[in-house]
Amino acid sequence: MKTRTVGFFVFDGVVLLEFAGPLQVFDVAARVAVRRGLAALPPFQPVVISRSGAAVRTREGVGIQAQASLQDHPPLDLVIVAGGALQAELAAPEVAAWLRQVAGSSEVTGSVCVGSFLLGRAGLLDQREATTHFEDTEDLRAIAPAARVSADRLWIDEGAIVTSGGFAAGIDMALHLVERLLGAEIAAETARQLEYRRRDAADRQA
Amino acid sequence: MKTRTVGFFVFDGVVLLEFAGPLQVFDVAARVAVRRGLAALPPFQPVVISRSGAAVRTREGVGIQAQASLQDHPPLDLVIVAGGALQAELAAPEVAAWLRQVAGSSEVTGSVCVGSFLLGRAGLLDQREATTHFEDTEDLRAIAPAARVSADRLWIDEGAIVTSGGFAAGIDMALHLVERLLGAEIAAETARQLEYRRRDAADRQA
Repeated sequence: MKTRTVGFFVFDGVVLLEFAGPLQVFDVAARVAVRRGLAALPPFQPVVISRSGAAVRTREGVGIQAQASLQDHPPLDLVIVAGGALQAELAAPEVAAWLRQVAGSSEVTGSVCVGSFLLGRAGLLDQREATTHFEDTEDLRAIAPAARVSADRLWIDEGAIVTSGGFAAGIDMALHLVERLLGAEIAAETARQLEYRRRDAADRQA
Repeated sequence: MKTRTVGFFVFDGVVLLEFAGPLQVFDVAARVAVRRGLAALPPFQPVVISRSGAAVRTREGVGIQAQASLQDHPPLDLVIVAGGALQAELAAPEVAAWLRQVAGSSEVTGSVCVGSFLLGRAGLLDQREATTHFEDTEDLRAIAPAARVSADRLWIDEGAIVTSGGFAAGIDMALHLVERLLGAEIAAETARQLEYRRRDAADRQA
């Protein structure tokens, strides 16, 4: 089982749980796979990426150190874009260019909450179905008019692009990706370890 | 409605979700209370505290900046102790002394997962019912022999001391504390905003 590098894009104003939840899911899934003897090395390795590589301050005021910049991160197998107060990121052409580049070379690019706005701005949602936090669907439609925006699904898997609702919906999306990549048994045991009551694709956001 | 300062104790090896989840709950509850016109100022203000005030590295490798040390934090109304690889914290007499001091002056001291080991080492669980992650109940019994350790409840509210299970159980504990302090309506709306499927006191850990 190969080790997949999972890049988490963070920025000033990022919502803490929206990267911490998915990151924790991949970390625990990696521990579960090793513990069960299904992998010699952890199958997921997270890396926290900010635009310049500098530390960021979450929307809640927590300082997070980045491990890489847009220019110097390792090759990414998965990319997760959290939501937050992202006006500055939406206005930065290098973020859109970077997302187009990594989405083209990674297995899955996913978003939590209004992180989908960044995917939309980069054109990655065009002709795809996508979602965001239930309060933000109209804004996503405005940013990505060629996307088909769904109002209340917890996550939407379009293969290379996966979007999810807000906050805890990112945990469900990450568990879905664990199931897709490592199988249902590891995903179920990961949720059990996390003491998380997992929801399935038929559940709604609110 | 007064602003309560909520201290989150973190350390090298802390589990990311176990402080990020409860911190996010208090942050969103504060936003909900202001948005609904129930408070002019946010009713919760988080502060991230490490032993020396230095940054810590979570068990997953994420660097978190602390905002205060054990010596220089503001007065705390609530204290949340996350779990993780906490051998060094268990061996540090100043951590136990600090916990006894803040538990004596705060409204609630809570723990997530094996964070309860630190409360136990400080003597705060003696003659109280307490819990931890379902895989760690025997270790909690060894550390806190005068506690009554429950194997699988999501959280246990003993008034001034509240303990919870692992990982996501800390989110349920925090929502319970929001309900206890601000009422059921704000707690329900907080869970809805978080897109979190809340569990109640009768639910079990696994």
